[in-house]
Amino acid sequence: MPVLSQDECAPWLALARVKGLGGVGLKKLIGRFGDARAIFSLAPSDLAEVEGLHRDVADEIVGFSNWAEVDAEIGRARAAGIAIVPFGAAEYPERLRMIADPPACLYIKGGLVAGDDRAVAIVGSRSSSDYGRRVARDLARGLASLGFTVVSGMARGIDGAAHESALQAGGRTIAVLGSGVERAYPSEHELLYRRIAAGGAVISELPIGTRPMAFNFPARNRLISGLSLGVIVVEATEKSGSLITAASALEQGREVFAVPGQVGSSRSRGAHRLIRQGAKLVETVEDVVEEIAPQLSARAAGARLAAPELAANASAAARTIFALLSDSSLHVDQVIEQSGLPASRVLETLLELELQGLLHQAPGKIYSAAR
Amino acid sequence: MPVLSQDECAPWLALARVKGLGGVGLKKLIGRFGDARAIFSLAPSDLAEVEGLHRDVADEIVGFSNWAEVDAEIGRARAAGIAIVPFGAAEYPERLRMIADPPACLYIKGGLVAGDDRAVAIVGSRSSSDYGRRVARDLARGLASLGFTVVSGMARGIDGAAHESALQAGGRTIAVLGSGVERAYPSEHELLYRRIAAGGAVISELPIGTRPMAFNFPARNRLISGLSLGVIVVEATEKSGSLITAASALEQGREVFAVPGQVGSSRSRGAHRLIRQGAKLVETVEDVVEEIAPQLSARAAGARLAAPELAANASAAARTIFALLSDSSLHVDQVIEQSGLPASRVLETLLELELQGLLHQAPGKIYSAAR
Repeated sequence: MPVLSQDECAPWLALARVKGLGGVGLKKLIGRFGDARAIFSLAPSDLAEVEGLHRDVADEIVGFSNWAEVDAEIGRARAAGIAIVPFGAAEYPERLRMIADPPACLYIKGGLVAGDDRAVAIVGSRSSSDYGRRVARDLARGLASLGFTVVSGMARGIDGAAHESALQAGGRTIAVLGSGVERAYPSEHELLYRRIAAGGAVISELPIGTRPMAFNFPARNRLISGLSLGVIVVEATEKSGSLITAASALEQGREVFAVPGQVGSSRSRGAHRLIRQGAKLVETVEDVVEEIAPQLSARAAGARLAAPELAANASAAARTIFALLSDSSLHVDQVIEQSGLPASRVLETLLELELQGLLHQAPGKIYSAAR
Repeated sequence: MPVLSQDECAPWLALARVKGLGGVGLKKLIGRFGDARAIFSLAPSDLAEVEGLHRDVADEIVGFSNWAEVDAEIGRARAAGIAIVPFGAAEYPERLRMIADPPACLYIKGGLVAGDDRAVAIVGSRSSSDYGRRVARDLARGLASLGFTVVSGMARGIDGAAHESALQAGGRTIAVLGSGVERAYPSEHELLYRRIAAGGAVISELPIGTRPMAFNFPARNRLISGLSLGVIVVEATEKSGSLITAASALEQGREVFAVPGQVGSSRSRGAHRLIRQGAKLVETVEDVVEEIAPQLSARAAGARLAAPELAANASAAARTIFALLSDSSLHVDQVIEQSGLPASRVLETLLELELQGLLHQAPGKIYSAAR
């Protein structure tokens, strides 16, 4: 994965070390001065112009001198095969850049790919039930096989089941840690950690060497939702950290989904509360896709300059169906009939084209080309 | 239970026998002419003035001559200890009178009491699971012990569990049948039928002798919801009759509640669909009461002519708490402290007074006297 040179990372790592400067302040500074390096050569009077930037924080920036520690961190990252992706880099996840308080730097084991912007988080209790893990696995497998990246926190229980199942389905998965990115925590997930790093990405905003401390986990949860189009809460007690992830998702304008369970199971109480508060009840992957497909379509539409066009490597089925629908709106049964393709192939291709923003589905399973 | 004399019932039974005249037409006729008997001495020209009344139906009324059958039905009811409660009687349930298509007559084994206007329906699958029946029992017991009447359809599974549990809790329960009211159907519910008739009411709109036929059940379901403030669907497949009851409840402006279950259980799919469509997810009786308490309070407020007053037989605790709250709004903890009563007694009494419409609860558990 191409990242900024170590030299370019340095000022971002420095910003991450400025006491009292969070993601909100970071966005203000970058919005005002454009570049991380420039910020460290500013006069106090320049920084005083940034609305809402506390005087103490400005003093910390002007007086920042710990470049040795920054260089040491760059050295540690290089030695451990950890990429540092600063807020200013093109590789920084676009969706995460949009949240109110993004990290100045991400530490990454493994790598991000373009398709990771189609991510859905699956989170839940560490003390999960067989039922909860089964549902988490089914959802992760389904999302992975539709090309979604599955994001979670690599904890025991639901998180682990979701990562595991996404990998087994040959899909992408991202683990966001509440410790330094080099730590496989919990230790029983050592092997899982290595597999995620090999086939996806392990991410943290915390400096290398940071131990897993409970007080870092809520902040970590905002990254899980921040990387994702939506968050599925599978099992959660009433005090579960998953509810913090759900709350972050709401603040960030992401979808919140919750999986129901039996009344009387304390493990489902948090999910039930979310549903009562408006989270969408999820039984299957289709329930999730139905809700996020419009966002994907809108994004794809926004990215197009002219009429929708098939990718150069589109399948023959996609070409046939896209041609059929370019002139007229058709019911799914008509598409099957007129295309002469097997029904399962047609359904799969329609979903694919819809997710690419090339087709629009109207109520009653009527498809037409997106305009 | 006092009802109209047999003679007074006759014209209502006759209206119930007029072909093509449903509850909608019935309401129009009574709205226009006031009295059932008068309708049978009208000229065709009088009936022609009723907007939307089909000419054929008017002819049926003018030509109605089957009074012998009506008298025979009255005789059968008397012999079987069945009360007939016509739409025009004061004993006809007020809430049922408000629906779009009320029955002209109700056949009743047992009897209705004033408190039956505080009814909640619990319905669900005949092929229920242990889990479903357990939740139905818990909810029925809880509602019964709060003084609610539990309405259901006396079917196997959820319905039976709900009736049974309400009776065991010493509460009121009403079974609405899709056959003649004299039939204990299914036969395994023979004993349950007798206990409901003894301690509550079995109700049907169908003539004595009508066999339980599936096509009568959807119409029956509108009476289950029509008698109730809300309907709780416990377990329902996607084609369950309980979904018809839920749809009736929505049409009638009643609350719809659904109990979640595990994803993958076909028995919970209908309930999950209802929740996605906006039904309130229910875990406990409190979830139900919370939703219907405002209706009860509003009704109680409407029924009062002046300031809220305690019942003459109110408990000492009720008097103490009501006096405390008549001057000021208090947090529940303050009520406990200032009343000097045990916390459990205070909570129970607060709920009781709230359900009577005498207290208002604001968010944050702040109580004040209803104005």
